[in-house]
Amino acid sequence: MSGNDLLATLSNTGIAKQLGLPTVPALRRHRPGDPLLAGPVLVASAGDGRFAGPVAAFVREHGQQVIAEAGEEKLHGVVVDLTGARTLADLAAAQQILTPAVKRVGPSGRVLLIGAEPAEAPGAEAAAVAQALDGLVRSIGKELRFGATANLLVVAAGAPPAAVDSSLRFFLSARSAYVDGQVVRVSEPVGTPQEPAEVDDPRAEERPLAGRIAVVTGAARGIGAAVAETLARDGASIVAVDVPAAGEGLARTANRTGGTALQLDITAADAADRLLTHLTERHGGVDLVVHNAGITRDKLLANMTADRWDSVLAVNLGAQLAINEALLAAGSPLHDAGRVVCVSSQSGIAGNRGQTNYAASKAGVIGMVRAFAPRFAERGATINAVAPGFIETEMTGKMPIGTREAGRRVNSLKQGGLPVDVAEAIGWLGRAESGGLNGQVVRVCGQSMLGA
Amino acid sequence: MSGNDLLATLSNTGIAKQLGLPTVPALRRHRPGDPLLAGPVLVASAGDGRFAGPVAAFVREHGQQVIAEAGEEKLHGVVVDLTGARTLADLAAAQQILTPAVKRVGPSGRVLLIGAEPAEAPGAEAAAVAQALDGLVRSIGKELRFGATANLLVVAAGAPPAAVDSSLRFFLSARSAYVDGQVVRVSEPVGTPQEPAEVDDPRAEERPLAGRIAVVTGAARGIGAAVAETLARDGASIVAVDVPAAGEGLARTANRTGGTALQLDITAADAADRLLTHLTERHGGVDLVVHNAGITRDKLLANMTADRWDSVLAVNLGAQLAINEALLAAGSPLHDAGRVVCVSSQSGIAGNRGQTNYAASKAGVIGMVRAFAPRFAERGATINAVAPGFIETEMTGKMPIGTREAGRRVNSLKQGGLPVDVAEAIGWLGRAESGGLNGQVVRVCGQSMLGA
Repeated sequence: MSGNDLLATLSNTGIAKQLGLPTVPALRRHRPGDPLLAGPVLVASAGDGRFAGPVAAFVREHGQQVIAEAGEEKLHGVVVDLTGARTLADLAAAQQILTPAVKRVGPSGRVLLIGAEPAEAPGAEAAAVAQALDGLVRSIGKELRFGATANLLVVAAGAPPAAVDSSLRFFLSARSAYVDGQVVRVSEPVGTPQEPAEVDDPRAEERPLAGRIAVVTGAARGIGAAVAETLARDGASIVAVDVPAAGEGLARTANRTGGTALQLDITAADAADRLLTHLTERHGGVDLVVHNAGITRDKLLANMTADRWDSVLAVNLGAQLAINEALLAAGSPLHDAGRVVCVSSQSGIAGNRGQTNYAASKAGVIGMVRAFAPRFAERGATINAVAPGFIETEMTGKMPIGTREAGRRVNSLKQGGLPVDVAEAIGWLGRAESGGLNGQVVRVCGQSMLGA
Repeated sequence: MSGNDLLATLSNTGIAKQLGLPTVPALRRHRPGDPLLAGPVLVASAGDGRFAGPVAAFVREHGQQVIAEAGEEKLHGVVVDLTGARTLADLAAAQQILTPAVKRVGPSGRVLLIGAEPAEAPGAEAAAVAQALDGLVRSIGKELRFGATANLLVVAAGAPPAAVDSSLRFFLSARSAYVDGQVVRVSEPVGTPQEPAEVDDPRAEERPLAGRIAVVTGAARGIGAAVAETLARDGASIVAVDVPAAGEGLARTANRTGGTALQLDITAADAADRLLTHLTERHGGVDLVVHNAGITRDKLLANMTADRWDSVLAVNLGAQLAINEALLAAGSPLHDAGRVVCVSSQSGIAGNRGQTNYAASKAGVIGMVRAFAPRFAERGATINAVAPGFIETEMTGKMPIGTREAGRRVNSLKQGGLPVDVAEAIGWLGRAESGGLNGQVVRVCGQSMLGA
């Protein structure tokens, strides 16, 4: 039992309260076969938006009631379409919708705002209103309790309603358990439009990555192993990659996922070549590349050595750059609707004491993703990043207890995330239907208080 | 004596250590007549940048020695030009420069990185390196001690070296005491190029706002009063604005600054008209408009009333929108090189529990500033925002002691800021030479750990 599970158990038994410990809400997580939505969803709009209809249809298709106005019933979710909100009066109308609704949101419930892109707003007031949703949703995230989350989808004017479909599936379901207080931008999908999975085919709903080949670096243990297992659960064929020294863990991941293993030092000069040749020859290509491998070599900058700096930058950033360039080159094995997901970190956003090398590498990943996004789009592919906060792994398990407990608690969900939470976010970005998500950085941090 | 001063005193006398309290570094702040730079400055570059020469000249013009390589001497500052850094090797070179240098940075010292705009980078590696500086500088800020700060200027390719001049004056001097861990973008200056003040004229150096008319809303007390006093100290003629009910404080501010007072409810339908007519008729125009007036009406969203929502949005956002639109209209009294500075808040970036209304309004200010920036630029003017973190005011003085102490301590400088710190940032953005700063949001928060 992890420390976090222990705290959750103590909370649930009431012992935590007696000890004066704050209670840790149990987060609902996705289990195959569970319905996507756990109860009725309030769907409303303020201003002249275009998403309330499609969202209501989505909720009904998933077997749940659509509520137009908050009453006495508990709600699984609240979705407010504010893409048409242009005035302070529209914003006030949103508050009037939200105030009675947030009271009714149940445990692990979902508040999802859909807003317009401030940079596309028809005037300063509309831009202010669109940006106001950012402060609003982050405040709601900090107010919700019992594992409920609040997130904002910012949708470009050119994006059709279907572009948000995969994001509705993610943010309204238990798959997004540890993604909270986030703002994600949806644009016109790249490449050929992808049909969403038919909801009357339960296999499609449970296996959204069926038929897709996914390579995961650093797959021998920790987050990488969880990513491989989660993507396999969702139907992907796994190519698990790690250094030869981690061969045992790597074989375990390959076995568990029914996939194959490739021992490779991704910092070697010929690594990108070897990886892509392997994917071409053994698998006939690749659909999803997850750059998860990463290392830390913490030291204050005043005491930093070239070796610690260089090794962290080489693994965490240099290898990703080389492989991504190769994926864009002529003859690349990357299939249509290819997806690249890079693992960044909260440290790359907020910085961290003792981690100048790590933070620089993880901020670098963000710069890389944004720079590559239009180039992948030209090929009908996307590249995005996830930025984990405090995730319960072997690594964080070795932290001093004070640092660990603080790390776990300084977020809106009052607990660390699990590796599967990062994996679920990667799975969402990895879906063929997620072509509207490109160049994004999604934090998986339970709305950590730490930021830039 | 404020609680913060008390802690600083306790620290300095060694009593804090005996009591087990963490020490609070005393921050050097600007006093008229003090030299801009308090000691030698290390100036270096990694990659083929264009700022090392001009920065070295700037340091020498201000009477200080330029150091090329860290030795045994204490440094006032470290400036590393990374605008030409394009490769991981360049980034490693930056680490090799910084590691010995940060050890030598003295109390209230300054680390300033100058980087290129990631979006303008010639490739993914260069974009990654440019963004890596963001994670690097925020980590350095979290490692520095004794009131030293680290900030990053991101300079657009089109900006000439002189465009960073006013930002060097700010970030290398004591005026930026409480601005830490920030990333500020400098672009090609708007309007007619403004000559920087001649450094051999001490009056010009001390009175950079001489001859400029500045209107400050919410000027009766707190941050607004400090803004008026600081701008007056720097040579501006003050028009102090506040509601009639605050008339006494307003008169005090006007007297202290040798300025004039205007009693005005900025949320009145004719407020923008009345203000601009007043500025035209009594002062012949205006150079600097500081939108400081703001209110809080905290309540959880679940218990929010329309009145609390509407009043906060009206004062904090609606009034700014109306006045700014009027400033852009034909016949506006805004002079050439006009400057608008809007007060946002950390809550508008990170959100805050109990402040959905306030956070929405302050995020809205950010959206408004970005939307207005190109329109003000067309007139040769700029609009920017400052976002204060925990500032010691009458308002924060009334917080429960636990909240207050926590608020003071969760930042890299381990203390709350002073109203003058916000005022100094506004003065910097308000200078005629700051035309390269437009649409920016600068936090004045001591590198608060709280963010998005």
